[in-house]
Amino acid sequence: MLEKLKEQVFVANLELVQQGLVTLTWGNVSGIDRDKQRVVIKPSGVAYDEMEPSYMVVVDLEGNVIEGDYNPSTDTATHLLLYRQFKDIGGITHTHSSHAVMFAQARCEIPCFGTTHADHFYGPVPVTRPLTSVEVEEDYEVNTAKVILDRFADLDPNSTPAVLVAGHGPFTWGSNARKSVENAVALEAVAQMALGTTQINAQAIELESYVLEKHYQRKHGPGAYYGQKKA
Amino acid sequence: MLEKLKEQVFVANLELVQQGLVTLTWGNVSGIDRDKQRVVIKPSGVAYDEMEPSYMVVVDLEGNVIEGDYNPSTDTATHLLLYRQFKDIGGITHTHSSHAVMFAQARCEIPCFGTTHADHFYGPVPVTRPLTSVEVEEDYEVNTAKVILDRFADLDPNSTPAVLVAGHGPFTWGSNARKSVENAVALEAVAQMALGTTQINAQAIELESYVLEKHYQRKHGPGAYYGQKKA
Amino acid sequence: MLEKLKEQVFVANLELVQQGLVTLTWGNVSGIDRDKQRVVIKPSGVAYDEMEPSYMVVVDLEGNVIEGDYNPSTDTATHLLLYRQFKDIGGITHTHSSHAVMFAQARCEIPCFGTTHADHFYGPVPVTRPLTSVEVEEDYEVNTAKVILDRFADLDPNSTPAVLVAGHGPFTWGSNARKSVENAVALEAVAQMALGTTQINAQAIELESYVLEKHYQRKHGPGAYYGQKKA
Amino acid sequence: MLEKLKEQVFVANLELVQQGLVTLTWGNVSGIDRDKQRVVIKPSGVAYDEMEPSYMVVVDLEGNVIEGDYNPSTDTATHLLLYRQFKDIGGITHTHSSHAVMFAQARCEIPCFGTTHADHFYGPVPVTRPLTSVEVEEDYEVNTAKVILDRFADLDPNSTPAVLVAGHGPFTWGSNARKSVENAVALEAVAQMALGTTQINAQAIELESYVLEKHYQRKHGPGAYYGQKKA
Repeated sequence: MLEKLKEQVFVANLELVQQGLVTLTWGNVSGIDRDKQRVVIKPSGVAYDEMEPSYMVVVDLEGNVIEGDYNPSTDTATHLLLYRQFKDIGGITHTHSSHAVMFAQARCEIPCFGTTHADHFYGPVPVTRPLTSVEVEEDYEVNTAKVILDRFADLDPNSTPAVLVAGHGPFTWGSNARKSVENAVALEAVAQMALGTTQINAQAIELESYVLEKHYQRKHGPGAYYGQKKA
Repeated sequence: MLEKLKEQVFVANLELVQQGLVTLTWGNVSGIDRDKQRVVIKPSGVAYDEMEPSYMVVVDLEGNVIEGDYNPSTDTATHLLLYRQFKDIGGITHTHSSHAVMFAQARCEIPCFGTTHADHFYGPVPVTRPLTSVEVEEDYEVNTAKVILDRFADLDPNSTPAVLVAGHGPFTWGSNARKSVENAVALEAVAQMALGTTQINAQAIELESYVLEKHYQRKHGPGAYYGQKKA
Repeated sequence: MLEKLKEQVFVANLELVQQGLVTLTWGNVSGIDRDKQRVVIKPSGVAYDEMEPSYMVVVDLEGNVIEGDYNPSTDTATHLLLYRQFKDIGGITHTHSSHAVMFAQARCEIPCFGTTHADHFYGPVPVTRPLTSVEVEEDYEVNTAKVILDRFADLDPNSTPAVLVAGHGPFTWGSNARKSVENAVALEAVAQMALGTTQINAQAIELESYVLEKHYQRKHGPGAYYGQKKA
Repeated sequence: MLEKLKEQVFVANLELVQQGLVTLTWGNVSGIDRDKQRVVIKPSGVAYDEMEPSYMVVVDLEGNVIEGDYNPSTDTATHLLLYRQFKDIGGITHTHSSHAVMFAQARCEIPCFGTTHADHFYGPVPVTRPLTSVEVEEDYEVNTAKVILDRFADLDPNSTPAVLVAGHGPFTWGSNARKSVENAVALEAVAQMALGTTQINAQAIELESYVLEKHYQRKHGPGAYYGQKKA
C-alpha cells in the first residue's frame, strides 16, 4: 500500500543527505496521505545508505504501525500532531542542520534580513519556549509538537513553514515531503546568512516590510510569477 | 537562433552550480548578442540538473520572449536595464552566494583588504541604497537595476564588475557569461575573506592604493602580464 | 591473526576520511580484542589512500609490536593506557577535526547546548589540564593518557565518550572502532554548533538537565527506544 | 628535459586543487633541480583542468624561460629569489587559501595555539611588512621575496616553512614540491583553527614551549619517531 508515497518519502530522505543536511542518522522526513489518513516516515536510526523504499514505515494518525518491518522515527509523534493541526501540509522534515540548530540552541528567532529569507518564509522563523520538566517526562515527543503549536497560535503555518524548537533544532513542512526538504535547505542557508550578517553589522536591520511582501508574493501569492506555469 | 550563445549561457549556469554558488534554484546567468540585440537567460525556477541548452530563453531588450518554451528568470528586467546602460558588458550573473549575501544584508560594502580582491575588483564592492516602497510596487525588477545604476553614477562598471543590492544579494558582470560567473566566484571568495579579516583584526586596514593599482593593472591594464598572450 | 578486527579498524580509519575529519594523515583509530589482549591500530604517518587492512599494526597492551610491517601510530601509548583503565571500551579515535581542536586550543569545555549534544554526550565534553614540562619530557604519550584519566576521576567514560586534550585535540571512544568514529563525528558537529550558538547569543544557556536526561536515556538508557531492536 | 620534475610539479599543482585550496586559477607550485639550476613552475592563469605535465615551464634562476610554450606564473620572480636564499628548499607553493589570506589581510601572525600547528611550524607563522610604494613600482615580484627575506633575517626557513605576505597571502615551502603543498594544507588548517580558537576564548594562550618543542622534534628532529623509517 502507499507505494508511491513511500517512494516519495524515501527520495526526500535521500535528498536531505545530498543537500548536506544530515550527519550520521540525524534527521527524518515524512509524508501524509490525507485521504487514507496514513503517514509514511523514515525508520529510526537506520543508516541512509542502507535504506530502501520498503524500509519506510506506515503509521496511522494515532501512531500505530500499519505496515513496515522497522520502528518508525522516534520523532513520529511530533510529526503526527503537526499533521493533525496544520491541515494543509503534506510533508514534514526534521533535521539537525548546523546553523539552524545554532539559532535553536541560542534560543533566538532568525530575523528576516533579506530576500533569500523572504522568498521562503514570510517573516522571522520563530523559536518555541522550552518544554517544562513535566512535559518532557509525560510525553516528550507529543509535547514537542505542542510547544510548536503554542508558538503558532498567532502564526500561519503555510506562510511560515519552519520553526526552531528551543535547545533542539528545526522542523520544516510543505505541501509534500519534497517541499518540506526544500524548506529545510532554505532554512539552513538563511540561518547561516543571518549569523554572518550580524557578525558584519551588529546593528543590521530587518528587510523592509514592503520588500518582504513583494518577494513572498511574487513566489507564493495569488499573482505569483516566479517559476513556470503549471500545465 | 543564437545556438552558440544559448550553449554558452547554459554552460555558465552549470558552472555556477559546480562552483558551489547555488542553493536550490537560486541564481541565474545571462548573455547578450549586441549585434542582434538579443539576451539569452536561464528560465525561472527550473532545477539545474533538468536543464538543457534548449531551455534557455531568448528575449529582446524590452523583455519580450522571442524564443523558448519557458518563462525567463524573474530577474530578467534587471539584467536588461543593466545591459542597456553598461555598454561593454556581455554577461550578467545573479546569485545568492552566502558570504556576498551577508554583506548585502548587512548593507556594508566589501572593503578591498588584499590582492585577491584587487585582482578582480578595482576598489570596494559597493552596496546600493534600499528601494523605496514606491519603487518596489511600481516595477520591482526594473527599479532593482535603477538603484544599481544610481550607485554606479560615479563608478566604472568595467573595473568594478560587481554590486551588492541592499537586503538582497550580488550581481556581477563581465565581457561574456562565463566571465560574469568568474566574477561571482571571486566575489564570494573575497566576501568570505573580508569577514574573517575583520574577525581577526577589527582595525584591519584596506590594501595600500599602490598595491591595488599594481594588481589590478598587471591583470587587466594595457600592459597586463598575467595569463597567456592571446594568439 | 585478528583479521576481522584489522578489517574493522581499517574500515573505521577510512570512515574518518569519508566523514571529512582528516587532513593529510592526521588522526588514527584503534580497536581492542579484550580476550586476546591485543590492540589493532593504524600505522604512523601513512597516507590513507595507500592503506590496506594488512597495514594495520597489532600490539600488546605494553606496546610491543606483535604483527605488522609498519610502525604503529605515535599515539599508541595513549590508546593503550586508556584501554587499560576504561574497561568497557572497544575502540578509540583520535582526530584533529577543526572545531573540536578549536575548543581544545581555547582550553574550554564544550557546553551541552542542545539535544544533538545530549544524544551522544551526557553533559559537557571535558578538557584536560595541560601536561607539565616533566610529563612531556618523561613519557609524553603515556602522560597524555594520564591527564585524560585525571580528568575522568569523577566522570563515567561510558556516558561521556570524549575528551579534549588541552592545546592538542579530541580523543573519543566507544564499544568498538566504528562507534568511536561515530562519536568523533558527533563531537565535531556539536563543537561547531556550540561555537555558533555563543556567537549568536553570548548568554546562551545550557540545555535543561531534564531534557539532557531524556535524550541521553531514550538513546542509551535501559529503556532506550531510539533505533531498531537488536534481533 | 627535467621530465620527472615537471611531472612532480604538475601533480603537486593538482594536489592543491584536490585539497580545496584553489579558487579559479589562483595559486601555483614550483620545484627546483639544484644540480641543473633549473626551476619548473606552473604557467600563468591556465585552468587546472586543462593542464598537462608538458605545460609546466622551465626557467633558470634569472627567470629566463628555457623550455615551455607558456608564460610562467607571474609570481616566478618571487619563487626564484626564495630558492636562491633558502638553500635547502626544493619546492614552493603560493595559494590564496581563505583562512591563511584572512590572517595575511589582517596583518597578524598565526599564533601557535596547539600541536597541529607545532607538528608543522616551529612557532608562529610570521607576517611580512607591507611593500613600500617604491618597492611595488620598481620590481613588485622580486620585492615580494625581499620582504619575506627581511622577515626571515632571524628565522630558520627550514623549521618555519611558511610566511604570510601582508595584504596578499601565504607562501609555503619544503624539501620538494609535494612537501610545500603539504605545508600549504597544514597552514590553511591551522589558520582556520586559530581563528576559531580566539573566537571561543579571546584570551587563548599559546602552546607551552616544551610541547611545541616535543611535537616538532618527534616529527622533524634528529630522533624523530613519527611516520615510517626510510628504507
